[in-house]
Formats: sequence, C-alpha cells, structure tokens
Amino acid sequence: MSIDDDEIVQRISASFEKQGLMRTIGATLGSVRPGQVEIILTPHAGVSQQYGFVHGGALGTIADSAVGFSAMSLMPSDRGVLTTECNMNFLAPAEGDRIIARGKVVKTGRTLTFCQCELFAKRDDQEQLIALFTATLIAVDGRDGISD
Amino acid sequence: MSIDDDEIVQRISASFEKQGLMRTIGATLGSVRPGQVEIILTPHAGVSQQYGFVHGGALGTIADSAVGFSAMSLMPSDRGVLTTECNMNFLAPAEGDRIIARGKVVKTGRTLTFCQCELFAKRDDQEQLIALFTATLIAVDGRDGISD
Amino acid sequence: MSIDDDEIVQRISASFEKQGLMRTIGATLGSVRPGQVEIILTPHAGVSQQYGFVHGGALGTIADSAVGFSAMSLMPSDRGVLTTECNMNFLAPAEGDRIIARGKVVKTGRTLTFCQCELFAKRDDQEQLIALFTATLIAVDGRDGISD
Amino acid sequence: MSIDDDEIVQRISASFEKQGLMRTIGATLGSVRPGQVEIILTPHAGVSQQYGFVHGGALGTIADSAVGFSAMSLMPSDRGVLTTECNMNFLAPAEGDRIIARGKVVKTGRTLTFCQCELFAKRDDQEQLIALFTATLIAVDGRDGISD
Repeated sequence: MSIDDDEIVQRISASFEKQGLMRTIGATLGSVRPGQVEIILTPHAGVSQQYGFVHGGALGTIADSAVGFSAMSLMPSDRGVLTTECNMNFLAPAEGDRIIARGKVVKTGRTLTFCQCELFAKRDDQEQLIALFTATLIAVDGRDGISD
Repeated sequence: MSIDDDEIVQRISASFEKQGLMRTIGATLGSVRPGQVEIILTPHAGVSQQYGFVHGGALGTIADSAVGFSAMSLMPSDRGVLTTECNMNFLAPAEGDRIIARGKVVKTGRTLTFCQCELFAKRDDQEQLIALFTATLIAVDGRDGISD
Repeated sequence: MSIDDDEIVQRISASFEKQGLMRTIGATLGSVRPGQVEIILTPHAGVSQQYGFVHGGALGTIADSAVGFSAMSLMPSDRGVLTTECNMNFLAPAEGDRIIARGKVVKTGRTLTFCQCELFAKRDDQEQLIALFTATLIAVDGRDGISD
Repeated sequence: MSIDDDEIVQRISASFEKQGLMRTIGATLGSVRPGQVEIILTPHAGVSQQYGFVHGGALGTIADSAVGFSAMSLMPSDRGVLTTECNMNFLAPAEGDRIIARGKVVKTGRTLTFCQCELFAKRDDQEQLIALFTATLIAVDGRDGISD
C-alpha cells in the first residue's frame, strides 16, 4: 500500500467513526481502496424486519455508506459528498453469517459522482448476491460547515 | 374508528414491534390508517452520518417500514409483503426536531403493490419536505414461514 | 396570462420544436405553466411494444421531456438542463385515446432540480394513472454550446 | 450455435418486429444470446433532444427493449414479460457513430426478473459508457391475450 492509499484509509476510517448510525447498527469498515470501499454487517435481532431477515433499511444504510466513502476516497480532503438519489433492488432475503456491501465509483464528474454497490450474503464461505444499489453523490466544498 | 380499522392498528403495531431495527434506531409508529402509515424518528447522534445530519440510511429505513406497513394494512392477515425495489431522492439535509415518514399505497395489484413515502423534517411546527421515496412490494402468502 | 408566462410558453415551444424525437413519435405540447408542462401522445402502431400497448420507452420519452421543460420554465433563458437520472414505475398497461404526461418541478436547488411526472391514459373522458416518473436534472450554463 | 439458441434468436427477432417503436426510431437488433440481448441505434436528427444529443427517452427505449428481450430469451414461448419499474442514470451526453444497449438478466425468480443494461456510445471504434439502466420485469402467462 502506498502512502497515498494509507492517507485514504485514515480519512475514511476517521469519517466512518463519525457516522453514529454505523455504530448503532453494528456495521464495520471492510476493505478500503481508492474508489472502492466495503462495509460489513453481521446479522442480529437489532437489525431485523418482521420476518427475521435483515431489514432492507439496514442494507440501504451500509450500501449508502459504502458508496459515500468510495466517492470520498477519490476526492481532496477539503471536499465532502452527499447522496442526492439512490435506487435499490432486492434479489433475495438477507440472511447469513454476514452481509457485505461492496461500493465502487463508476463515474466521476465535475459535480456529480455515480456509484454502484453490490450486496452479498455470506454463509459457509459461499457468497450470494442479495441486492443491487446505485447512487448519485454531489460534491460539497467547505460550505455549510461540511468537511470530512 | 371502525372495528376493522382497530384490527389493522393492532396488526401493524404487533408487526412493528417485531422489527428490531425500529427499536435500535429509536423510531416509533405514528398515525395508522388503511393504506397510510407514518413512522417517526427523533434525530440523535446514534442515527447520524459524518456531518451530523440524519443518515440517509435511517431515512430509507423508516420510509421502507412506512410503505411496508401501508401495504400490509390493505391485505388479509395471512399475507405478508416484501420490498422488491425502492428509489429515494434527497431534497434537503435531514435535521430538525423530528423526521416524519408518511407512507401511502398508490396502486394495488394481484401480485405487486406500488407505494410512495414523503419524508418531512419538523422544526418549530414547520414541516419541510426533505426526501421522496417510492417502492414496489410483493405479496407473499404463508410461504417460507412468512406471516405478519 | 402575464407577459412573463407568454415568454415562457414561447421558449418552451421553440425548444420543443428542436426535439426531433417528439416529432418522430408524434408527441405534442400540452399545457405550459411555470414549473408545470404537459406532453400528449396519441397511441398509434408506431409507438407500440410487442403486445400492442404503448412502449414503456415512449412513456419515458414524453415524461423526460415534460420534466425537462418544467425545469427549463423556471430558469433564465441562458441556462439549460440535462437529466442526470430518472426512475419510472409502470402501474397499468398504456392504452387509450391519448396518453398525457404531466411534469412538475418539486424542488429547485443551486445545481439540481427534482421533478415528478404522472402519466395518465385517457379513454372516454376517464383518466387512469398508468405510470409515475421521477427525475433529477442538472443546470448547464452556456457550456459545451448548450442553450435552449 | 445450438438449435435451442437458434429458436431463441427467431423468437426474439419476431417479437422485435412487432415493436413498432423500434422501427419508428430506427433501432436494430444486435447480438442475441440466452439472457443477453443488444439493441443498436445510429444517432440521427429524428431521435434528438434540443441540444442535438440523442434524447434520453430514446436511450431508455432501447434499454427497455434490450432487457425485455433478455428476459424473454430465458422463458418458455408461452410466457411474456412486462417491465414494472426501471431506473436510469445518465453518465455522459449521448453522441457518436452508434449507441449500443447491452441488456442482461441478473436474477430470475418465480414471478420477477431483474435485469441491467449498459449503454455505450461508439465513435472511431472506441466505446464510452454513457448510461446505466436497471429494470424489474414481471412474467405474464397467456393472460390478457399476451404472448410473444
């Protein structure tokens, strides 16, 4: 890992710590590379919906953070990002040993960054694709008190 | 309120109690009417993203539950619903005294139910529209152990 | 109608004429008001899909133009708009005497404008909601040769 | 190519011919394989929006057909498909020698099929990703007079 990558990991880790919702639901930061960030969630009763599966909102939460940090990892440290829209398709019930949200940047523009996130349920070392998430993020520069 | 409406409120309340994620993030059930259900979230550090606003994932979570219960409220008690896809547009940063997700059923079909949810931030008795959410839900009948 | 509204109608009409695809599919401009524009399509074999209904792509086309002109109607004449993302839910097969796409601006921001469009099928003076469309548009200022 | 594949190509080609909108905008069928279908559009003034780029609606049209035929290619011949929802993100203005929509099936279920489509602009043998499209399709069996 280069020094630059190391700086990125430190920035993303510090920003992750500020997201109270990550701690509340028990999500952790996985692999961090430029333009690609993973968030991991171990299913537990506190993130369930009424049938016992992981709530779609918990999936959307880790996907949103995964793409937000993916976008942030490609930006100078004085710029932040906000999600302007997202879309999610649920392909299979969310259950297993752990849920992994793999975010990545697909396209960066002057103002907008377009990202995708695939969500997998891992059980006995088998991964199953359970949801697909896309999002558009807008860069914000030190306005409204926003920084990493 | 008719007896039928009363039964609906009881069913939705019981199902809400089974959603561990609602308790985890501190959301509560608001108004429940046939085809229209509200979920309320009082912002706190445990549902924040890195800039201190309410995390988009928390908004998506209460919106998803609001439309799920809206759809469930129009179904016989032996049928359940699962969200198959959703879309969310964020119009303003989420902050205020409380966040209200107002779900409603727009169209019911044999298999699919289409719903919308408007999210408002309330501050000093003023409400501001902060996000719009749409979702498609699929009815599931007593299969895979699914019931309310 | 005020003079300002008259100018808006002229701008939108002129821009509509430049959209070759509107003429190709036979769509016409309906009501034009600030922030609200209608596009009308009379179903014919040239806009059908394989079962004889109006093709979803034709619905998306008139919805996209309806929201684009709705956004443009609230902007100074040297700014244009481009759609960055859209989402569409199909609620009923598209058939009838005419299809009406009613676009409106929901939220305007510094850079982004969020719009919705409802699509109705009209038959024997009855209107049925057949699709719902949402879109985010980005303002572009005289860059890349873009103007109305 | 196996005999089965040959039957698929014939079914898809016959269904493509019934889509009046494909002929109207000048789209043609590209590669057809089980679960993957391409539609091609050569830009011309009749599919333009007001700035001269290909209209987003034309992109949505070929994407919708590409995923519809992708889904149809995996089904028995007495089943048809209808799109229930789609989402599209526009990454770059659509211009070039030709536009290619590459649809594919991501997940098939009992009732719903989830598909993606990538759209490329080709110029001087270089391809650029210009849009991403996702859609959910519902299977319909010989009801309401629907067949290929």
